[in-house]
Amino acid sequence: MLSFFSDIPPINLCFSDFIQQKIDTKTKPVGALGQLETLALQLALIQNQANTDFQKSMTALTPMMLVFAGDHGINDENVSIAPSAVTGQMVQNFLNGGAAINCFCQVNNIPLNVVDCGILQAVKPINARQAQMLVVQRLGAGTKNFATQAAMTPEQVEQGLQYGALLVDKYCQQGINILLLGEMGIANTSAASAIMATLTDISLEHCVGVGTGISDEQYQRKIALIKQALLRAAINGPVDNPDVILMCLAEVGGFEIVQMVGTILAAAKRQIPIVIDGFIVSIAAFVACQLNKNVQDYLIFSHQSEEKGHQLLLTQMNAKPLLRLSLRLGEGTGAALAFSLIQSAVCFYNNMASFESAGVDV
Amino acid sequence: MLSFFSDIPPINLCFSDFIQQKIDTKTKPVGALGQLETLALQLALIQNQANTDFQKSMTALTPMMLVFAGDHGINDENVSIAPSAVTGQMVQNFLNGGAAINCFCQVNNIPLNVVDCGILQAVKPINARQAQMLVVQRLGAGTKNFATQAAMTPEQVEQGLQYGALLVDKYCQQGINILLLGEMGIANTSAASAIMATLTDISLEHCVGVGTGISDEQYQRKIALIKQALLRAAINGPVDNPDVILMCLAEVGGFEIVQMVGTILAAAKRQIPIVIDGFIVSIAAFVACQLNKNVQDYLIFSHQSEEKGHQLLLTQMNAKPLLRLSLRLGEGTGAALAFSLIQSAVCFYNNMASFESAGVDV
Repeated sequence: MLSFFSDIPPINLCFSDFIQQKIDTKTKPVGALGQLETLALQLALIQNQANTDFQKSMTALTPMMLVFAGDHGINDENVSIAPSAVTGQMVQNFLNGGAAINCFCQVNNIPLNVVDCGILQAVKPINARQAQMLVVQRLGAGTKNFATQAAMTPEQVEQGLQYGALLVDKYCQQGINILLLGEMGIANTSAASAIMATLTDISLEHCVGVGTGISDEQYQRKIALIKQALLRAAINGPVDNPDVILMCLAEVGGFEIVQMVGTILAAAKRQIPIVIDGFIVSIAAFVACQLNKNVQDYLIFSHQSEEKGHQLLLTQMNAKPLLRLSLRLGEGTGAALAFSLIQSAVCFYNNMASFESAGVDV
Repeated sequence: MLSFFSDIPPINLCFSDFIQQKIDTKTKPVGALGQLETLALQLALIQNQANTDFQKSMTALTPMMLVFAGDHGINDENVSIAPSAVTGQMVQNFLNGGAAINCFCQVNNIPLNVVDCGILQAVKPINARQAQMLVVQRLGAGTKNFATQAAMTPEQVEQGLQYGALLVDKYCQQGINILLLGEMGIANTSAASAIMATLTDISLEHCVGVGTGISDEQYQRKIALIKQALLRAAINGPVDNPDVILMCLAEVGGFEIVQMVGTILAAAKRQIPIVIDGFIVSIAAFVACQLNKNVQDYLIFSHQSEEKGHQLLLTQMNAKPLLRLSLRLGEGTGAALAFSLIQSAVCFYNNMASFESAGVDV
């Protein structure tokens, strides 16, 4: 298992100066495209991994949006606005094309696949198109209620990481060169907050938010239940120890979170950029970075959501998100919305004239 | 002249409840799409102007990006990093397709036209495509140096407003139903800051920024010159008085700013949404709103730039921009980048399933 995340290379910086110079000689004042310049540099660096030839243009982006879905036993405690059945209903909605993520993928020409990581009841695709959209990698019919027992076994964690990694092989073979990650799972903010409280120094109260909009009473219960889980699981030890991290995933994680961790690790290993959505996906990214800090080089943070812990988590990771639109939906919506900015970074890097070529006085 | 901006209708709110309900029954928690929901409401309201029939879907957006270019006599005082010739060179770059705005329009499928409002030397299109992109509405060969004399005559202001309004007629006839505004004009932050200092209570020092990146010495000179201009012009009187506003434009304005004011007023009159770019376009929008407060209903603020005065100006206008990417380029780049968010708002409004239609438990 350790080899799985031990050999992720850091980004190769040998062409940094070439790339930065190419950006700086475009027909604009130095730095005038702000965050898009940082993004262009990152993407060009990721694409220039060989030490031999500096690649003058970036390869066009061929994206895939993956929405990871799973159910959570903790929702037996009524910590969400919705019953767990809604996870499966929303997966059906994704397959039918009726959700927000379908709309935003449509606007941005991003193909969408949905991964059943272990929702309560498997969804039945009603036609070939839906069958093609749905990837079935079930780790079970929802996790256990982590307030009273471990959410999953260590074997499920290992299987989940491997499932997540398999996806990267599959999509790379199809020519995909950038992955966008989203998720669906009623009560998964509870799991994400529990992981965050375990693996960071941030106090539990700051890690827990109102999710999609629970009442104050539910919010207090959510905090109390997670506190109970953390006491029960009694995870001690250095939080950058892989064994501790994997134990944390088993104790309070979620099937979709574990598979996303696997996907992020495997994508970084293949040096594929990964677009991170909101709080839940960011937690998976954080866990992947704890397992191997080089992962961070390949992450693009799409947005900062309204969920309380997300801003703190982004700060903890030194992440500067592209969008701040007060979204709190998940599904990959922020990642899809940010994709045109990512496309724009590639386009200006490839197609903007230099001062010299345009005959503009510097 | 007064009739030109006296009969702009406010947005018709009669279908607010219908529209909000349509948004609230989509398969997402209420409010979970944050700013995109506010935007969808605004766009749907703009499209529902008739009192009779509530239009269930929004009409698809048919955009046009207009980049207004003009030169500024104040640049004789060396207040910018670039000579005034760069305005014309960049206009040529726009026509050649080599600028940032070309890239971002390309990514977002936005056609681009450039308006020569009065650059130093008229640009000669080198082929039919370029000739079609270029609209020539010159008010002169650059404004006068406003540190020592009025930038333009009252007649030029009037002509500029009419030129700007003509564009709206032209593009509406072509089926355009949303306008995106950008600008190019070396030293036009000086004009914009001078207008802002005149028409708001904000102190001059807070209205003046470093533009595309001038030295501290240039920055101090820029402030001193604008101070001198304001003393010279001695604009007194209530700043919501149209005569005072038009006098301000003549004294310290710019040809591209005046034409944008005309375009914004005429677009609002026709109830066409207008996407505002950075500091310079926002100043034109602010002036238009001072001339008729109903204009604000039709404005979409695309981004908050790095230019110092922009954030304060947006706050003054109660504007919540869609993007904050530390851009400081102008050209309409922020507006073009925000367009996919605007498309996404329309798309979710039209295409997202309701809880009922999707069979999702509320």
